[in-house]
Amino acid sequence: MAKTEGDEVCHGVGDRSEEESADEMTIFKKIIDKEIPADIVYEDDQCLAFRDVNPQAPVHVLVIPKREIRSLADVVETDRELLGHLLVVASRIAAKLHLHDGYRTVINCGAHGGQTVHHLHIHLLGGRNLDWPPG
Amino acid sequence: MAKTEGDEVCHGVGDRSEEESADEMTIFKKIIDKEIPADIVYEDDQCLAFRDVNPQAPVHVLVIPKREIRSLADVVETDRELLGHLLVVASRIAAKLHLHDGYRTVINCGAHGGQTVHHLHIHLLGGRNLDWPPG
Repeated sequence: MAKTEGDEVCHGVGDRSEEESADEMTIFKKIIDKEIPADIVYEDDQCLAFRDVNPQAPVHVLVIPKREIRSLADVVETDRELLGHLLVVASRIAAKLHLHDGYRTVINCGAHGGQTVHHLHIHLLGGRNLDWPPG
Repeated sequence: MAKTEGDEVCHGVGDRSEEESADEMTIFKKIIDKEIPADIVYEDDQCLAFRDVNPQAPVHVLVIPKREIRSLADVVETDRELLGHLLVVASRIAAKLHLHDGYRTVINCGAHGGQTVHHLHIHLLGGRNLDWPPG
């Protein structure tokens, strides 16, 4: 997960399409702070959900905690309730967006996972058959 | 997510390789009850983690709750702490299995997600670059 300084440049929102410096405010933090617009589908005091600008399925939403957690590798025991809330919210959004035929949730962590925005996020994908393996 | 009776037959452990009747005990419940052997990598009072018999990456572990929850579409608010625990455990297992270069977690829900074992489970995949899109 080590990254080389200097090759990091912002290309847009979404994994594998963006590289950010670990020291800078992430694009997701800017969306939370409403500095950057997003197609928000759900919001509460703990989390925010918005459509991915590079959708990989007819429905592709990102669910993120408002609190900045760098990645799944950085979670601690006391994050359990927040993490569970993100999954319950993903499930509720899927129902709200009529994904009655099913869906997939994905969390990318680190380079092998394809994570490039260093703010923990859950991808919710649906509206088509998702293939196997998942990447 | 509707399934036709009669075409359901057990082929092995893992999504898209197995079909089970919703009325029968799932293969995961049998693993929890130690009726079927599995390569268990972690266990506590709330969950169990074992290697997928059809691995899609050098490391491919399934993390499941011991309590039977059919799918992510069936979770309720009171499942938050359990769901969060599953993600924290996935993160801990990834560290234990030396996935320092990253990994991906996946939850399949329903037909479009490719879920065929009707017991909620988190796939933890690592040890190689995971492609995009995730299926």
